[in-house]
Amino acid sequence: MSKNRIVLAYSGGLDTSVAIPYLGRMIDGDVIAVSLDLGQGGEDMESVRQRALDCGAAESIVVDAKDEFVRDYCLPAVKANGLYMKQYPLVSAVSRPLIVKHLVEAGKEHGATHVAHGCTGKGNDQVRFEAGFLATDPDLQIVAPARDYAWTRDKAIEFAEEIGLPIEQTAASPFSIDQNVWGRAVETGYLEDLWNAPTKDLYAYTEDPNLSAAPDEVVISFKDGVPVAIDGHEVTPLEAIEELNRRGGAQGVGRLDMVEDRLVGIKSREIYEAPGAMVLIRAHEALEDVTVERELARYKRLVDARWSEEVYDGLWFSPLKRALEAFIEDSQKNVTGDIRLTLHAGNITVTGRRSENSLYDFELATYDTGDAFDQSYSKGFVQLHSLSTKIANKRDREAN
Amino acid sequence: MSKNRIVLAYSGGLDTSVAIPYLGRMIDGDVIAVSLDLGQGGEDMESVRQRALDCGAAESIVVDAKDEFVRDYCLPAVKANGLYMKQYPLVSAVSRPLIVKHLVEAGKEHGATHVAHGCTGKGNDQVRFEAGFLATDPDLQIVAPARDYAWTRDKAIEFAEEIGLPIEQTAASPFSIDQNVWGRAVETGYLEDLWNAPTKDLYAYTEDPNLSAAPDEVVISFKDGVPVAIDGHEVTPLEAIEELNRRGGAQGVGRLDMVEDRLVGIKSREIYEAPGAMVLIRAHEALEDVTVERELARYKRLVDARWSEEVYDGLWFSPLKRALEAFIEDSQKNVTGDIRLTLHAGNITVTGRRSENSLYDFELATYDTGDAFDQSYSKGFVQLHSLSTKIANKRDREAN
Amino acid sequence: MSKNRIVLAYSGGLDTSVAIPYLGRMIDGDVIAVSLDLGQGGEDMESVRQRALDCGAAESIVVDAKDEFVRDYCLPAVKANGLYMKQYPLVSAVSRPLIVKHLVEAGKEHGATHVAHGCTGKGNDQVRFEAGFLATDPDLQIVAPARDYAWTRDKAIEFAEEIGLPIEQTAASPFSIDQNVWGRAVETGYLEDLWNAPTKDLYAYTEDPNLSAAPDEVVISFKDGVPVAIDGHEVTPLEAIEELNRRGGAQGVGRLDMVEDRLVGIKSREIYEAPGAMVLIRAHEALEDVTVERELARYKRLVDARWSEEVYDGLWFSPLKRALEAFIEDSQKNVTGDIRLTLHAGNITVTGRRSENSLYDFELATYDTGDAFDQSYSKGFVQLHSLSTKIANKRDREAN
Amino acid sequence: MSKNRIVLAYSGGLDTSVAIPYLGRMIDGDVIAVSLDLGQGGEDMESVRQRALDCGAAESIVVDAKDEFVRDYCLPAVKANGLYMKQYPLVSAVSRPLIVKHLVEAGKEHGATHVAHGCTGKGNDQVRFEAGFLATDPDLQIVAPARDYAWTRDKAIEFAEEIGLPIEQTAASPFSIDQNVWGRAVETGYLEDLWNAPTKDLYAYTEDPNLSAAPDEVVISFKDGVPVAIDGHEVTPLEAIEELNRRGGAQGVGRLDMVEDRLVGIKSREIYEAPGAMVLIRAHEALEDVTVERELARYKRLVDARWSEEVYDGLWFSPLKRALEAFIEDSQKNVTGDIRLTLHAGNITVTGRRSENSLYDFELATYDTGDAFDQSYSKGFVQLHSLSTKIANKRDREAN
Repeated sequence: MSKNRIVLAYSGGLDTSVAIPYLGRMIDGDVIAVSLDLGQGGEDMESVRQRALDCGAAESIVVDAKDEFVRDYCLPAVKANGLYMKQYPLVSAVSRPLIVKHLVEAGKEHGATHVAHGCTGKGNDQVRFEAGFLATDPDLQIVAPARDYAWTRDKAIEFAEEIGLPIEQTAASPFSIDQNVWGRAVETGYLEDLWNAPTKDLYAYTEDPNLSAAPDEVVISFKDGVPVAIDGHEVTPLEAIEELNRRGGAQGVGRLDMVEDRLVGIKSREIYEAPGAMVLIRAHEALEDVTVERELARYKRLVDARWSEEVYDGLWFSPLKRALEAFIEDSQKNVTGDIRLTLHAGNITVTGRRSENSLYDFELATYDTGDAFDQSYSKGFVQLHSLSTKIANKRDREAN
Repeated sequence: MSKNRIVLAYSGGLDTSVAIPYLGRMIDGDVIAVSLDLGQGGEDMESVRQRALDCGAAESIVVDAKDEFVRDYCLPAVKANGLYMKQYPLVSAVSRPLIVKHLVEAGKEHGATHVAHGCTGKGNDQVRFEAGFLATDPDLQIVAPARDYAWTRDKAIEFAEEIGLPIEQTAASPFSIDQNVWGRAVETGYLEDLWNAPTKDLYAYTEDPNLSAAPDEVVISFKDGVPVAIDGHEVTPLEAIEELNRRGGAQGVGRLDMVEDRLVGIKSREIYEAPGAMVLIRAHEALEDVTVERELARYKRLVDARWSEEVYDGLWFSPLKRALEAFIEDSQKNVTGDIRLTLHAGNITVTGRRSENSLYDFELATYDTGDAFDQSYSKGFVQLHSLSTKIANKRDREAN
Repeated sequence: MSKNRIVLAYSGGLDTSVAIPYLGRMIDGDVIAVSLDLGQGGEDMESVRQRALDCGAAESIVVDAKDEFVRDYCLPAVKANGLYMKQYPLVSAVSRPLIVKHLVEAGKEHGATHVAHGCTGKGNDQVRFEAGFLATDPDLQIVAPARDYAWTRDKAIEFAEEIGLPIEQTAASPFSIDQNVWGRAVETGYLEDLWNAPTKDLYAYTEDPNLSAAPDEVVISFKDGVPVAIDGHEVTPLEAIEELNRRGGAQGVGRLDMVEDRLVGIKSREIYEAPGAMVLIRAHEALEDVTVERELARYKRLVDARWSEEVYDGLWFSPLKRALEAFIEDSQKNVTGDIRLTLHAGNITVTGRRSENSLYDFELATYDTGDAFDQSYSKGFVQLHSLSTKIANKRDREAN
Repeated sequence: MSKNRIVLAYSGGLDTSVAIPYLGRMIDGDVIAVSLDLGQGGEDMESVRQRALDCGAAESIVVDAKDEFVRDYCLPAVKANGLYMKQYPLVSAVSRPLIVKHLVEAGKEHGATHVAHGCTGKGNDQVRFEAGFLATDPDLQIVAPARDYAWTRDKAIEFAEEIGLPIEQTAASPFSIDQNVWGRAVETGYLEDLWNAPTKDLYAYTEDPNLSAAPDEVVISFKDGVPVAIDGHEVTPLEAIEELNRRGGAQGVGRLDMVEDRLVGIKSREIYEAPGAMVLIRAHEALEDVTVERELARYKRLVDARWSEEVYDGLWFSPLKRALEAFIEDSQKNVTGDIRLTLHAGNITVTGRRSENSLYDFELATYDTGDAFDQSYSKGFVQLHSLSTKIANKRDREAN
């Protein structure tokens, strides 16, 4: 097997299409294109598969990974209330490790020597891809044409024309887009001026919140942190996200416009749409408020934030992330029950919670008849709760 | 000075009005009523002052503490993005230590032996009051009639009638309310069933978001973390909050419905309205995203959360809170610039940021001409960033 | 079952012996004495059992809980490197929840109505006992004679004489001692002056380090964080601690003299001896340094500290502690290998480590022939590792 | 100024001596050698200065930075109890930013275009140097001959002979050493086998603990976290460290043998000696135990650990480190008082503490006459302290 075999993360777009003949030439080998259906919608996956072959791929593989993606990559994000910088639901970040997994599997099957991706050298996704390859199959040589060969879009088009590649030259979209069932990310030059507001043409998963339809009330049922029913009908996790994408999107829910701290050290402006993700996470948090004990909840917020940073930073396969998940998994016992929300005009409003595993105790909480809380405990509690502060303030007064 | 002198935190309501003669009788002494104007609106403060005297207070003091409250108690909450459980803007929690301060001052002036408050024995405010007294003037004896004498509303009314107290018997409101310029808190028996949604009559600071007026665009300018102008007009911090209360409230912004982990160990359902607070904190966070370095921002989120817990838990005067504020204060250098937001239909949407102290660098962030980011650094970065994870995964594969 | 049945944590000492008739009188019921063998040594457990009966107990139960104690209570402390305030190996703190467990079991078996312990009202152990009872059997009424009846030693002796209790009146020891196989705690009035140094008569588990014998070299082998062999001989965890107590004690290892932050809000001076615990934890840490990945190790130090605080604070049965242990347990995979230490003159010195699961990679670490580390990665790494700091410093220079 | 001017961090050793002509040749410019006296002892600094000139430096500058080093770089480490991985007192890590500062100053004075250091590409010091340069003077081009030109010791010697450099060819020492008044770091090939114990010839700052002299009792006085007197005699911070190096070293105190997590992702074996640093930090911790309130102390341990990681990771100039120091600085108010220690046979044993700012309150702590602690508070405290755990355990029992 003297010839190189290059597994390529193939999206079907211009850049990775052109990469097929380009990589074959630069590295002298066969290209195996691997495409994943992560619920991104748009083009038919069979067309994507065929295009790779048309561009000269030796093999072209399409994997329907939607259920696996949701189960193993999105649900952990729900359990961790995974929001980087308290906002971004890790749309691209959770998809990269799954793509890595399937590329490595295809690589093993086809005796690959190299693995390639289309990311540039200033984003997070290069890190997520490559950290993933290094963690799971370090023998694969990594190639990133856009970065390593200073590849640009103009160069790509030029090369495509030069070799007569069967790619339609659509008028260059001003948007750089990544999308899957968990959400959609958009970058565009216009928004690089932070004072510019997003324009309407940026959005595809969500309607304009200002044109919102009548309010939509939804009840989401969870079992141990996992969504299992919507409005009383059982759903798979994938169905849950799809339905909430549709219903949340119709209400303009889940739009994000933020300045983000990239792992490579710069700040960048990003637009996201993630209606299903935002609804699920909000509902999950509300259910945790009812079913998770105070100190566990306080600490879990720190663990959740760290989990989100690990995943954002491309360290999906790190030992730390695994241990954080052991913590999180343990915390999800009894995160079971129903959350009722109203989706409307861009808002997610929790209006009701019920759970057989609730820690809310009406008899302790009520101020009415039946109050079971013994108020006589409070005096001693206050005294000792604040004793060390009392002593310190006394010392400070005397020290001055 | 053989006679007791009791400083009472006086709100003007039934409970603390009745407490005046009651305390005088139980403790055998003079009652000094102290009322603070914290921007709670409603009744004229002079009427409140007079009512205390009518009820038998030996002295009745009203303090206009609005500016002090905003400057020394609300602004630290802005800088700390102070949201307990990621939601509650600490409406009552930040007011209690200021009330403590003025009670203690009045106590010193009038030679007080006791200090009294009207809180029950199962809430947070008793802790905040008493921890404050113990920290700042531990010689005062603390009395909490509602808790220590098992005082109830029925008993209070009965006693008022018995002694012919000049209090109008309004039909008992079903709501227990605390409000100030930073927000408004409502509890009511109906919501003790967590599945019940809030009713419209709960709200006073905000309009129904569903009936929202035309969108309102607002530009808030900050200097070192402090709001200094709105739409280009200079404002005091108090004016900033008042204007944002008005404009945010008109758009139905800042309503909260949550299940909260009380310090005394129980969960309770709470409704809050805090339009100005929520707008300010959201704008402040957005400006920090642009002006605070990544690792400082990540750590500050932990510090912010801890600050909020300390303040929620009644430990305003603790040494830890003071040290956390030293961290936070240092982080606010350069949190300077403008944030543009749209308020509409309950939503706060950031649409633009600009700052002379921005860390966003167009030349590093752009993918267009002028890109100054050297992508050749990335390959080495990825390798070493993920090296320890790579080695650990290799070990794990070999260990199995 | 009209009669009360009181389960008592019985140590065999004066206080709990006198408590038997005293409780029977105050609560009007039968006392069931429960004593645990936790490896504390000293008196024969059968004598302890008989004494309770002689003092009037209706039942007297002795449980040999040494192996259970080590397996379920000390080993978690090893895995968590459990040192409160970086020093105290939680000698008493880990024993209380096990005593709780056996008291509750005895209570269920004998239909107990009450549970009693001999702790005062200003220490940590009352909290540990009572938090444990409330968590595991809240129906039991808790009695703490020393606290609730303001019981003192003098009163106890007086009462013992009054009723002719068969307790020898030893000259009152100046020491208050708690000990088990995990260590020994001593308090005494003389040390309440913090400037006083400990005296030689305080110690029982350790020799004077200044009179130390010839150095003792020991090799401890761990499997997944648990000690399994010493000097190549397989041992049970209990045997491991006993042997290290003996050998460490002979070298004066494991003495502690500290000022401790008690949960009730005061600082207190404490003396501990825990040779086996300190040797095991030190060895375990050294093995983690070799087998745990950097970021997991950094985060685990925070988790370890929090675990120690939870256990110190009496929250052994808390949901947070359980989730922290899920994290810790996950981290212990591959904490397997041998640590060689020299014990001498009070010192524990690690001199060698070896592990099949080591993350130390000679080929990456060496500066000699065979160096496999690609130094060309470093330049890019440094640039991006520090880029956000570089940008922030540039901004700061320009802002001034 | 067409000619390059290269500022070189000059140690006087072979590598940086050879670098003078080598850099001049590779970069075509003048070399300005900068050497700092950080209390490393050994050779006279004037000889070092002259050697640079002899090797061809255009300028050779020696800076006596001992006091500055201790005041601005070591004292922050004392206040932060700066121990990376709970062990390493950051000997090299705190010195690099000061060297950076003086190199940059010399660079400005001499119109430098480049800055050079002698570190390899697999250690931490390259990161510390370069992150420092990028933060404080990003216009300087950075050169690291050992890394960028794949420079080795053999090559260096060869080049030195080739050009007849006036460097004595000492038999190659097997040790790689970095030392200053804060401590001494040693690496050597023999210890790259982790099972090998350190040999006696590794040590220079400390005597063999097994041959220890008579115990040495020392009293260190601190003011706001800074050492100000030893045995009652006022000292400068530099004198404090020098005296404790001498007295601690004589007792074999401060030896460390550890496996360390390097920033570049590998584990390495390191030997350190830091008698003065370890004694000061131990004393400082003991004084904090007496003077810092519990919750502040708990949180400060996290902050201390993070500070140590930032400094270890080369981020001395980061905004996060500055904010952490604001926290730490605030915590040091009242860390004032005396700590008595015995140094002997490698041990540092705290035997007494006294402070006018102590939070230890004899009247609260004592069990004897005068006890001012009101035990009646404890019952209520225990109940509410553990209430959320009690409720959670009840739920868990019912859920199963």
